[in-house]
Amino acid sequence: MTDSLQLDNDIAYQLREAGQQLRVDSVRCSAAASSGHPTSSMSAADLMAVLLARHLRYDFADPRAPGNDHLIFSKGHASPLYYSMLKMAGAITDEELLSYRRAGSPLEGHPTPRLPWVDVATGSLGQGLPIGVGVAIAGRDLDQLPYRVWVLCGDSELAEGSIWEAAEHAGHAGLDHLTAIVDVNRLGQRGPTRHGWDTAAYARRFAAFGWHSIEIDGHDVAAIDTAFRKAAEHAGQPTVILARTKKGRGVAAVEDREGAHGKPVPDAEDAIRELGGDRHLSVAVTPPPPDLRPRRFPVSEGHLPAFKAGDAVATRTAAGQALTALGNTRPEVVVLDGEVADSTRTQYFADAHPDRFFECYIAEQQMVAAAVGMQVRGWIPYASTFAAFFSRAYDFIRMAAISRASIRLVGTHAGVAIGQDGPSQMALEDLAALRAVHGSTVLYPCDANQAARLTAAMADISGISYLRASRGDTPVIYDPEEEFPVGGSKVLRSSPDDQVTLVAAGVTVHEALAAADLLADDGVSARVIDAYSVKPIDAVTLRQAVSETGRILTVEDHWPEGGLGDAVLDALASGGGTLPVVHKLAVRQMPGSATPAEQLQLAGIDMVSIAAGAADLIAGRSAN
Amino acid sequence: MTDSLQLDNDIAYQLREAGQQLRVDSVRCSAAASSGHPTSSMSAADLMAVLLARHLRYDFADPRAPGNDHLIFSKGHASPLYYSMLKMAGAITDEELLSYRRAGSPLEGHPTPRLPWVDVATGSLGQGLPIGVGVAIAGRDLDQLPYRVWVLCGDSELAEGSIWEAAEHAGHAGLDHLTAIVDVNRLGQRGPTRHGWDTAAYARRFAAFGWHSIEIDGHDVAAIDTAFRKAAEHAGQPTVILARTKKGRGVAAVEDREGAHGKPVPDAEDAIRELGGDRHLSVAVTPPPPDLRPRRFPVSEGHLPAFKAGDAVATRTAAGQALTALGNTRPEVVVLDGEVADSTRTQYFADAHPDRFFECYIAEQQMVAAAVGMQVRGWIPYASTFAAFFSRAYDFIRMAAISRASIRLVGTHAGVAIGQDGPSQMALEDLAALRAVHGSTVLYPCDANQAARLTAAMADISGISYLRASRGDTPVIYDPEEEFPVGGSKVLRSSPDDQVTLVAAGVTVHEALAAADLLADDGVSARVIDAYSVKPIDAVTLRQAVSETGRILTVEDHWPEGGLGDAVLDALASGGGTLPVVHKLAVRQMPGSATPAEQLQLAGIDMVSIAAGAADLIAGRSAN
Repeated sequence: MTDSLQLDNDIAYQLREAGQQLRVDSVRCSAAASSGHPTSSMSAADLMAVLLARHLRYDFADPRAPGNDHLIFSKGHASPLYYSMLKMAGAITDEELLSYRRAGSPLEGHPTPRLPWVDVATGSLGQGLPIGVGVAIAGRDLDQLPYRVWVLCGDSELAEGSIWEAAEHAGHAGLDHLTAIVDVNRLGQRGPTRHGWDTAAYARRFAAFGWHSIEIDGHDVAAIDTAFRKAAEHAGQPTVILARTKKGRGVAAVEDREGAHGKPVPDAEDAIRELGGDRHLSVAVTPPPPDLRPRRFPVSEGHLPAFKAGDAVATRTAAGQALTALGNTRPEVVVLDGEVADSTRTQYFADAHPDRFFECYIAEQQMVAAAVGMQVRGWIPYASTFAAFFSRAYDFIRMAAISRASIRLVGTHAGVAIGQDGPSQMALEDLAALRAVHGSTVLYPCDANQAARLTAAMADISGISYLRASRGDTPVIYDPEEEFPVGGSKVLRSSPDDQVTLVAAGVTVHEALAAADLLADDGVSARVIDAYSVKPIDAVTLRQAVSETGRILTVEDHWPEGGLGDAVLDALASGGGTLPVVHKLAVRQMPGSATPAEQLQLAGIDMVSIAAGAADLIAGRSAN
Repeated sequence: MTDSLQLDNDIAYQLREAGQQLRVDSVRCSAAASSGHPTSSMSAADLMAVLLARHLRYDFADPRAPGNDHLIFSKGHASPLYYSMLKMAGAITDEELLSYRRAGSPLEGHPTPRLPWVDVATGSLGQGLPIGVGVAIAGRDLDQLPYRVWVLCGDSELAEGSIWEAAEHAGHAGLDHLTAIVDVNRLGQRGPTRHGWDTAAYARRFAAFGWHSIEIDGHDVAAIDTAFRKAAEHAGQPTVILARTKKGRGVAAVEDREGAHGKPVPDAEDAIRELGGDRHLSVAVTPPPPDLRPRRFPVSEGHLPAFKAGDAVATRTAAGQALTALGNTRPEVVVLDGEVADSTRTQYFADAHPDRFFECYIAEQQMVAAAVGMQVRGWIPYASTFAAFFSRAYDFIRMAAISRASIRLVGTHAGVAIGQDGPSQMALEDLAALRAVHGSTVLYPCDANQAARLTAAMADISGISYLRASRGDTPVIYDPEEEFPVGGSKVLRSSPDDQVTLVAAGVTVHEALAAADLLADDGVSARVIDAYSVKPIDAVTLRQAVSETGRILTVEDHWPEGGLGDAVLDALASGGGTLPVVHKLAVRQMPGSATPAEQLQLAGIDMVSIAAGAADLIAGRSAN
């Protein structure tokens, strides 16, 4: 610790004063809000004072400057500290600070990108570090810029597995411009953490995952300063700074006490007095080096794959080929995969654009987090794995929406149609889960040309977009030039005599077409709609079908809840007026192993079941 | 390795032969199925041969025997190996083995409890070990029985964060009767793993998390035997056996080769010949000690809490108190929490029943997995955290349904009604996500007496049940003696003149009641239904309301997709016949921070919005 002595006494004094001001402002804004997490802010105040004053390179007037460092509060509940830093840096006024947690204020209970300096929303613990890994990968491997990524973590959140996915990824990749700063204040919400102040316990874990670790007293500004310097200098490994701190530091009523989590300090005026009163320090944060420009990959010619009508091609294959072409024409496109690129067909992209392909191994949370991190820097990430396994990252997807992130998810091997592998590998809840993400787009192509077009279209979709792709080959039914606007649908069969409309998507489109043939043999005319855009769904076409055919039968390779059928019902209900008769065919029993054709039949979503359901509907017999 | 020499040459020969037979049978059943994972089975065949023949204590004739060891294939895709073990143990016939992956066969692509010897479904990687931790906790802390838990893991799945949640939990808890056996065959699906055969890399990680580690050659039967013995003898720590193996071991066409994952070997007959031909060994597996009885906690008197009409009590508080009473009368009830027991109110249970409360810290995947593991042994687990954070464990919940597990989830702090904390802490997709779990039950009480009753009822619900609880106090409107059957609802306002029905649940029930008062002031009579059972929903009462009031307005503190409104639409559509006019009020904009009352208002789900929506509906104006 002799290095610490290099810090000039005056500077040390100023830094301690800055830390106290951050505490005072954390106390003040939480008191004004009558809620919030001042004690979790006070433990990390000295860490952040030193970072802001001496190590962060950031232009608060230009939060999109390519050279800016990135500071992510993985412990998002310490938002009072973050906002107090913004005030100290001159980015917000004291009045704005005191709007904390009020209706309309962008200073929310947990930080979100409603503030231009916030990269991503946090507040679900264990997410900031994996996202930081994504930003750091972007910095080193895509932008090729020297910015650093600083992530403030709590000690409690180190129990989240996602932290160790991040540790493994960053350690193995040697992301030496990433620094995790762990505020080891030993107290969680309910009580002490497993390891208390045993920073060595955490150091052993991070070291085992390939990190450089530094243990310090998190209230010793000189030690903090030295740790940040060493972190920046250390090459070849990410650094974790394990800082022993006290929760509520500086106010005896709450310092290192249980039961003081997540609430204002009992007496704010007393506390401020105890902290030495209000100060009016400002910090001129060092801007990044000017004129830095991120690396840009060259544009080259690329054509979406074109598939011939009648050929049998899996939509996953078409999606993979489309991504590869898109990689030529859209050099911001990057692809991540969860160690199944041979199955998801992102291997094509990996072969064509190895510099923009990121193997995330079997760590879906880290994969989605990395995608979120990369889009912070303007890249256009597509993340792909089996549709079923996006459920592993559902909290990350939910939070990505709060981050106002634009990420694209391609989930393959959806539904019972995968066949023998059994239910663990099927996604039968993905449409429900992804529809229930704010602002999401959910696409489900049935043929290769459609899959290629929709995959390409996702590059320009804001928010969370999801493409559900199939394992098995399906016949090509569309022309390569056909367009598939998001929010649209395709009416594949239609006549003035239609007595029923079959609404399908993905594999069930082909079953519905075959069912329409079966029905035609019995003299029944059925309309068939390919609802490839499950969200937003084409309400206009559905309502027209209602008015013209009266009856609607939806059919989906998904549980009955929250999928295509519910989307159709919602669209029809939203239109006002009386709804038609609507029946839903969906997967209602737990599948086992069977061939794809057997699975569709057993689930009652094959052509025979559809035809029978339609006949029942027309006859006025109850389905389901 | 001198210990290894203790193994008699004859025994070693027999064990190697047993390993070869497991390989042959893995090849045979995969060839018969034309799919499956023989190569991932062959790598672990020697490990499992030694385990089955010399270390597992299990009575295949009595899979529920309390003293049985538990063997969990975390690498569920190695199911051919597992089924081959069952055949060798005499549990299934060769004919049954060859039904692998066929329609109707319980020998699915990945193991499920359709086979009585399978505790839980696996196939989503990284889940078997955390579930094994739950079984091991049950063994030591609940059953107090000496059974061992053996978990076969793949090396690829060690990238999953859930593995490290399990490592942390087991290491800290010192679960020395838990052994993880890692089949380090160095090859994932797409290609090599991060660490290849560097078992030391894994050993460092596990050791840092407090585990005893043993590195061996996974094809040396003597070394394997010694490792299992050492694992069983080692006290105070769980053991991980890191076994260097070759994928496809024994068949040159696939051994240690990329591109041979997840498919039958190219020529099964050749492969069987190369493996020394078919054998007909059987193994008499050692049964567990007889007459072992699990510890049972005493029954004592307990009464559900009773709340007085007009008092304001949060449903989370009532749920916590109900759980505590249930702990007296139902001694199999155990509670797990994700370090927020003070907020979820499971702290009451922790105080009253400390031996049956399990702090899982901020590791929701491990928490749900532990619940699944405990119910394997007949315990009745309730797991609780903020509703939003069950999204972190969504894949585990999905898989728990495939495991035919009965677990109870209590998610508190649901919806925008939490107020200032902001969207990261709100669950606005939980109803959609939990409805889309096969066989699930979704409950959402609006008052404390209802919450208490429903919490208690969950103890007897099979499958995944979920209770959505609220942070804020709500008025008590029901009598403590009132009953709330699952699948029921309560009609809170009703008259023959009703022109519209308001369907609400949880916090919106109170807003709907207030809206009915507002409407009454304008001369409009509105029916109010408390749909506390969101799944199954009370279709009969809803249909009656339709026939009597014509119009339905649903109102929910949730995104519009997949929640209460969709459940109502589905119930009405399922009934056949023409649907009424249905409008949905739901949260449609991303919330920020605000007071609870402001949040409801901003989201358009408060009493004023409901009254306005109902008036629009009656006037024929389009809502939404």
